[in-house]
Amino acid sequence: MKSIPLIVILSLFAAQSAAQWEALPDSAPSPADNPTTAEKIELGKMLFFDPRFSATGTVSCFSCHNVMEGGDDHRSVSIGVHGVAGGRNAPTVWNAAFLSSQFWDGRAATLEDQAVGPVTNPIEMGMESLDDALGRIRAIPGYKQHFDTAFGAGDNVTMENAAKAIAAYERTLITPNSPYDRYVNGDEYSMSAQAIRGMNTFESVGCSSCHSGPAFSGPAMPAGAGFFVKFPTFESNGDLEKFDLLADQGRFEATGNEADKNIWRVPTLRNLEFTAPYLHNGAVKSLDDVVTLMAQAQLNRNIDGDQVADIVAFLESLTGEFPTQIMPRLPPTPGDLLD
Amino acid sequence: MKSIPLIVILSLFAAQSAAQWEALPDSAPSPADNPTTAEKIELGKMLFFDPRFSATGTVSCFSCHNVMEGGDDHRSVSIGVHGVAGGRNAPTVWNAAFLSSQFWDGRAATLEDQAVGPVTNPIEMGMESLDDALGRIRAIPGYKQHFDTAFGAGDNVTMENAAKAIAAYERTLITPNSPYDRYVNGDEYSMSAQAIRGMNTFESVGCSSCHSGPAFSGPAMPAGAGFFVKFPTFESNGDLEKFDLLADQGRFEATGNEADKNIWRVPTLRNLEFTAPYLHNGAVKSLDDVVTLMAQAQLNRNIDGDQVADIVAFLESLTGEFPTQIMPRLPPTPGDLLD
Repeated sequence: MKSIPLIVILSLFAAQSAAQWEALPDSAPSPADNPTTAEKIELGKMLFFDPRFSATGTVSCFSCHNVMEGGDDHRSVSIGVHGVAGGRNAPTVWNAAFLSSQFWDGRAATLEDQAVGPVTNPIEMGMESLDDALGRIRAIPGYKQHFDTAFGAGDNVTMENAAKAIAAYERTLITPNSPYDRYVNGDEYSMSAQAIRGMNTFESVGCSSCHSGPAFSGPAMPAGAGFFVKFPTFESNGDLEKFDLLADQGRFEATGNEADKNIWRVPTLRNLEFTAPYLHNGAVKSLDDVVTLMAQAQLNRNIDGDQVADIVAFLESLTGEFPTQIMPRLPPTPGDLLD
Repeated sequence: MKSIPLIVILSLFAAQSAAQWEALPDSAPSPADNPTTAEKIELGKMLFFDPRFSATGTVSCFSCHNVMEGGDDHRSVSIGVHGVAGGRNAPTVWNAAFLSSQFWDGRAATLEDQAVGPVTNPIEMGMESLDDALGRIRAIPGYKQHFDTAFGAGDNVTMENAAKAIAAYERTLITPNSPYDRYVNGDEYSMSAQAIRGMNTFESVGCSSCHSGPAFSGPAMPAGAGFFVKFPTFESNGDLEKFDLLADQGRFEATGNEADKNIWRVPTLRNLEFTAPYLHNGAVKSLDDVVTLMAQAQLNRNIDGDQVADIVAFLESLTGEFPTQIMPRLPPTPGDLLD
């Protein structure tokens, strides 16, 4: 009988802790103009994995957003068609449904807006125009029936519908039930003591002031409003020069507004174990280094090695369950598709 | 009662027909030194899909042998690391287990031998050496347990074992139960009348003298002995110049033997619907054109449009059932893997 009070106390502690932290939902809400359906998901998955809508027929969404890995491409910066490297690290597609806006600089408000961007980027998929990409889809007869099933019969092979389908698939790419999620949901044994210490340190030093919410990418925002911060905030602190973190001016490159210089959308911290190297330029190779740097550059704090190790243990507890992915069957290629 | 004799006659006809043609087996035999196991298949699948063993981290076996499509890459010739195009059309990996030898020029005797070739080819995966590729595998901690499970504990992360695992996975890539297979197995309604006509024409004009056996890639051969033919055999016939078919001298490029000039391993005809464009240089874009050309260049025959259409209908009946592919989960990347 003596042990009961202790269990009650532990349960109360877990319940109290849960109130401050959010678990990742099992599903993502869909916008009113693009309700998620099984048919859209299936078509979107086909388009996501299909490399035939790139200039050389070699690059698909999957090329840089590898869902067999961390939803990124394990490179510092990505390589697209013609072997040319881009300027930024591929953000993970896992849990992108929970981000306040898309791309590192938040220049796309929604997954639908994001999906069409890389198609005509000369160093990503490199198509001359969205019409050319659409022409490729239309030239593959097997796609038509999938557009009909997903969007109803008619003149439905449009870039808008392709983007809607891809976004519907991406909304299924959620990794729930991490040790952290189970802890927040009441399983006080799912996280190690070190990870729990790290969780408290994460909050007490101030990481959670930006990295809040279920994806640790900031608070819930109105649709299209991104959650942005200046990075680095404390330019004089940390190894900013070593990591060349000021060369890319972030949102300013998209908007041209002075106020957007070095402004970035806050990225998710889920599954960081799978998404090295880190930051917008992929210059930081280890979790230890990126935690140390972020404390310096964003919080003006030099945290000690034990604190770093604890926070890293906490971050590793954010690795969730990756849902099984069945490969789509892609329809046959007419022999002159890439002419 | 009157109908019974007719059914008997049809059944006898089907049985007689089946005796001359072979259905595709559901499974492929494995060599004595590499028995297929579930653990090897799982590891081999991971390695097959993993792009981290190429110079840029962007090219895997899957890049040119897309099992979501025809097991090839829908390009005339493939593109590897650094965006450089190779000289030949990617052969399909589907049913490669039934080929007498591997690569267009048969320079690898087995799937195991083939698997390591592209890794150090400068225009395919472009690694400096097999040791460098092995170093990448060893640098990803998550792989070790899979080698242990597949090959027993010990110093087992070797290129030989990696190749064995990939070959074990590739031996599962079989597409049985095509209309043709069902016909050969006694279902006389599985093929159209036109396809059956085409099957007979395929034999009577001589296509089956080379394209025999269950994969239509030639007769069963002793292990390592490839089934080769000269292509083109009749150089004065057909559009050889138009398709630039003599520029690549085939097996001669691998052996340097005069006798190997324009000698090629006979490719499979299964799933041709999915593998356009055709021939070693991918210069022929349609099944109609390739059937016409092969009759000219190999049989010195000018077959008419009806015969071509019938043979194409037969070839389309060789599209089988593609087994469902579940994506592997690839282990996490150390941040400095690609340094």
